[in-house]
Amino acid sequence: MEFRINQAIEILRQTPGTLDSMLRPLSANWIEQNEGPNTWSPFDVIGHLIHGEETDWIPRARLIINYGESRPFEPFDRVAMFEKSKGKSLTQLLDRFSQLRSLNLRELQQMNLTEAMLEKRGIHPELGTVTLGQLLATWVVHDLGHISQIVRVMARQYREEVGPWSAYLSILGK
Amino acid sequence: MEFRINQAIEILRQTPGTLDSMLRPLSANWIEQNEGPNTWSPFDVIGHLIHGEETDWIPRARLIINYGESRPFEPFDRVAMFEKSKGKSLTQLLDRFSQLRSLNLRELQQMNLTEAMLEKRGIHPELGTVTLGQLLATWVVHDLGHISQIVRVMARQYREEVGPWSAYLSILGK
Repeated sequence: MEFRINQAIEILRQTPGTLDSMLRPLSANWIEQNEGPNTWSPFDVIGHLIHGEETDWIPRARLIINYGESRPFEPFDRVAMFEKSKGKSLTQLLDRFSQLRSLNLRELQQMNLTEAMLEKRGIHPELGTVTLGQLLATWVVHDLGHISQIVRVMARQYREEVGPWSAYLSILGK
Repeated sequence: MEFRINQAIEILRQTPGTLDSMLRPLSANWIEQNEGPNTWSPFDVIGHLIHGEETDWIPRARLIINYGESRPFEPFDRVAMFEKSKGKSLTQLLDRFSQLRSLNLRELQQMNLTEAMLEKRGIHPELGTVTLGQLLATWVVHDLGHISQIVRVMARQYREEVGPWSAYLSILGK
């Protein structure tokens, strides 16, 4: 599918509500379990998404628009949430994510991005030259990837409980 | 995580709202694309979930409760939706799924399942002996697996659009 800003926004706008529906009423067991050492729980993922709203997507879009290739992005701290989420409740994190996402989408729309602007280039500290359009497509795929991660983590809590059906359930892995 | 009926219901109850949030406002591009020949679009997945509500989970639970191992389950038609969903809109399918899930959860709760009943056995046509608890755990994991499939299918529409970021986005596959 060709990247179109309005279709990207359709997905970005839904993510907070989707995560809310998926997680808000669940008991702590579902929210706090992970997949073993050095893996993330659904709670951790929401914290990571918050940190992305604060430091990754829109800040990088601004950098591309204002500085192009003359100023590389700040590296993104993938695990900042382990400190930042401490002492917070899932409800607080979901509310914060939703609020930040609204503000960021408002700013995105105020950028009035044209096709030509989506071709503007910036410098990723590891990947090198990237375009604004690629950054925004990545924002969408990053959302979807973490939704997928959350449901996988929850599904795997029942790996043993499904008995012989595990043979049919590819989400459980091998 | 040990299977507890109330925790399983927490997930089962959320799935219609989650799919609604995820899909209802999206443009047809997102809903109708699949991953290539013999793969399913998000639209197809919702039809499959509906067919499961109609013919799989609760009907099989009833069979176990009423007949135990004396009557094997009917085989489940995984691809019935390709015919059944024809001519329907996504909105119709989402509404239908939500309605069926409510009815089925009401029936599940009216079964007043005890720990001992969860151990009751039935016969799966391919897998052999299974328990009622395993059937219900599978219902949960099946929901989560198809949510994961839907977000994967949508994410992969942007495989090319993310440019060099594809290296970081495991949901895009290889």
